Amino acid sequence: MHELENLFFPKNVAVIGASAEPQSIGRAVFENFLQGSLADNTFPVNPNHAEILGKKSYKSIKDIPAEIDLALIVVPAKFVPQVLQECADKKTKAAIIISAGFAEIGEKKLTQQLQTIIDKNPKIRTIGPNCFGVTCPKNNLNTTFSASAKTGMPKEGTVSFLSQSGALGVAILDWMSTQEFGLSKFVSYGNAMDVDEADLLDYFSRDTDTKIITMYIEGVKEGRKFMKIAKKTSLKKPIVVLKGGVHDETHRATASHTGSLAGSTEVYEAMFRQTGIIQAKTLEELFSFAKILENEPLPKGNRVQIITNGGGFGIVTADAVLSEGMRLAQIDEKIKKVLRKTFPPTVTIANPLDLVGDADEKRYSLAINKALQDKNVDIIMVLVLFNTPAIDTGIVTELKKIRQKAKKPILVVTIGSHYTQQRRHELEQAGIITFAYPNVAARGIRALSDYAQFKKKHA
Amino acid sequence: MHELENLFFPKNVAVIGASAEPQSIGRAVFENFLQGSLADNTFPVNPNHAEILGKKSYKSIKDIPAEIDLALIVVPAKFVPQVLQECADKKTKAAIIISAGFAEIGEKKLTQQLQTIIDKNPKIRTIGPNCFGVTCPKNNLNTTFSASAKTGMPKEGTVSFLSQSGALGVAILDWMSTQEFGLSKFVSYGNAMDVDEADLLDYFSRDTDTKIITMYIEGVKEGRKFMKIAKKTSLKKPIVVLKGGVHDETHRATASHTGSLAGSTEVYEAMFRQTGIIQAKTLEELFSFAKILENEPLPKGNRVQIITNGGGFGIVTADAVLSEGMRLAQIDEKIKKVLRKTFPPTVTIANPLDLVGDADEKRYSLAINKALQDKNVDIIMVLVLFNTPAIDTGIVTELKKIRQKAKKPILVVTIGSHYTQQRRHELEQAGIITFAYPNVAARGIRALSDYAQFKKKHA
Repeated sequence: MHELENLFFPKNVAVIGASAEPQSIGRAVFENFLQGSLADNTFPVNPNHAEILGKKSYKSIKDIPAEIDLALIVVPAKFVPQVLQECADKKTKAAIIISAGFAEIGEKKLTQQLQTIIDKNPKIRTIGPNCFGVTCPKNNLNTTFSASAKTGMPKEGTVSFLSQSGALGVAILDWMSTQEFGLSKFVSYGNAMDVDEADLLDYFSRDTDTKIITMYIEGVKEGRKFMKIAKKTSLKKPIVVLKGGVHDETHRATASHTGSLAGSTEVYEAMFRQTGIIQAKTLEELFSFAKILENEPLPKGNRVQIITNGGGFGIVTADAVLSEGMRLAQIDEKIKKVLRKTFPPTVTIANPLDLVGDADEKRYSLAINKALQDKNVDIIMVLVLFNTPAIDTGIVTELKKIRQKAKKPILVVTIGSHYTQQRRHELEQAGIITFAYPNVAARGIRALSDYAQFKKKHA
Repeated sequence: MHELENLFFPKNVAVIGASAEPQSIGRAVFENFLQGSLADNTFPVNPNHAEILGKKSYKSIKDIPAEIDLALIVVPAKFVPQVLQECADKKTKAAIIISAGFAEIGEKKLTQQLQTIIDKNPKIRTIGPNCFGVTCPKNNLNTTFSASAKTGMPKEGTVSFLSQSGALGVAILDWMSTQEFGLSKFVSYGNAMDVDEADLLDYFSRDTDTKIITMYIEGVKEGRKFMKIAKKTSLKKPIVVLKGGVHDETHRATASHTGSLAGSTEVYEAMFRQTGIIQAKTLEELFSFAKILENEPLPKGNRVQIITNGGGFGIVTADAVLSEGMRLAQIDEKIKKVLRKTFPPTVTIANPLDLVGDADEKRYSLAINKALQDKNVDIIMVLVLFNTPAIDTGIVTELKKIRQKAKKPILVVTIGSHYTQQRRHELEQAGIITFAYPNVAARGIRALSDYAQFKKKHA
């Protein structure tokens, strides 16, 4: 068992600094455990109370009559070093220090004290300080102290997410809960005084529940260690990184923000390229890339066939594909002949392939199946405008059938209101990924294609 | 009255080619009128029936015992020239030819015949052929033949939208209906054999119901005429254009698509710059730009102050602002002192101004009000993560108060699920524009700032 497994699947948990005080972090964290699957295995530690929210409270973790796998630390910063020492004495396997007030506010003495304790006790692995901790839907585990009435929780899935920033991380989890894909594990790791992004990457590279690793980082602790692990991991599963602080001005700001050292943008971009890390430039890309990489097979090349029932929509999408440095596929001559014979004369056999306004699911089905056969086509973009009378749920049924046997990436792009949204939902449920904006889809296939290239080169 | 006013506010309408045939375009168009405010003033023309959907049908438009302001033409292409001549004989003021089958499919003879009729009868102004016609929510008028059960209709508003592509145009209208802003008028103008994009631009520049003009174009008919009108219009109200066919390959495809001539990308981009047209590079930008330009005052410069309750969110946003070539404002020294005295020591007075996780609406209010006073600040971006316990509907109330007196652009960026979405909706209802993604907001303020520059230069 990987030593970091205790963060997500602990048997017994101590909440040090648990509280009954309304709106306190100590209460929010403790209540999350009382409502989760570990309710009976969670022990509050607080020397000022005999009982907290109906549970017997302990003066110290050392007094708990059970082995503890994970300690949550939410006491004021000045008590943290001593509390962590007690956890180590108790042979606790992992700790998450949520408390802030260390390097991120320039507090050197306390930071040094805590570092000493961490270094002296290598057997306890520590996340934080200054973090939100972890979330693991599979185990109904959530150590973050966000207000649950205002914050959605993503369903269980295969995307893991590491965030140096806690607040942004939680906001993204919240937003993820409205999207069609699910979370394997989330870690907000804050100042990373012990466990850092490279350690977590190593854990996720071995975690069979994680298919895609996404990260928000402002800097890495140890460049060489990170690179080595990242390159090994990239060959197994994709890593998508959003790097905060890519301009001189923001780069300086990040140094203070989580107390980490930030290198120059050029250094980071070179590192990402060399290790096969896919760099997202925006929050939107972080998850659109993850969605594509999670669901689609890797393409052999970058030749895209666009199939549409709206000419202008096809043009806008072709522009987006070409702007991303991808190519428009040249339809194979034999296939061209078949299509020309079968389709009405209003359909020009070209790329974009405009099936025109009266296209129904049969016309789409033939076009997509031929593109799947076509050795000149690597990736298929299916554009559907649902406003025409000829298009209805039939296309959803056809696409589901096609997706099951297709070995090439197929993306659906469709824009509209209620009717279109409902069809998008049905497609996503069936594992067919959809986008409203052609440029977002095109950026995603560029990322997929870059990752395929990296794997081919290093296979 | 502008002669094109008849397109949107006709008194009497003839639907030539009206039909009772299920799923026919002739029926879809006619039914739209029967359900609209012009039901009693709509006359079907169809020589094969005495009555259509309960209305007396006429053999020719000439037989209608009333003056006709607008004729909708949905007959097969080969009958269109003759039908248009009859409309002209009847002294009809405007016609919309929805029928396709002309230059866009390489049909030269019929196109020439139709052009002759158009040229001989300059008093009737004609939209199309090969188009979807117009939509005007203020007059409950909709000539498009999209399936209404599947297609939402935007509420009445001040954004007008011209689209060379009919299907894409209707899909965008459908999508617009889910967004927070409203439509003044939509025109799908197709092959533009008579009325072209320049004529429509001229109409919208004079239309007091239109504050922003958005366009999807693949090419323009007459460059010089378009430029002259565009430049004059830009000084009065912003024009945002999405140009389809910006790569050599797509550019060739557009030439066939609506039968228009497409110039090189460089020529178009130079034209946009010279005329103050704001070029959207994606569908997403077309309307995010419109939203900002519709609601926000023009900024004096490009210095942006970011105010946030999440450090990482602030960094990502600052990166986006700098990537767009905007600047981060330097807070005025006197204001710095006031903020330093008032805020807790955990708040570092900088840009991004991170009010930290326990910030409530009062802290935001002070920070925003000071930024409004600060002569070093041109634009304010307010980032709100609603997941923290200290943030609730109070911030919405504060922002509403601030918006009423603010003379600088203020944008809200916030990402999350149900709770956040509800707050976004409340803010938008109060005229405060919101974004989920920092980069989309940053692109928007860049467009706003570019337009402000253009107006200043040509004032």
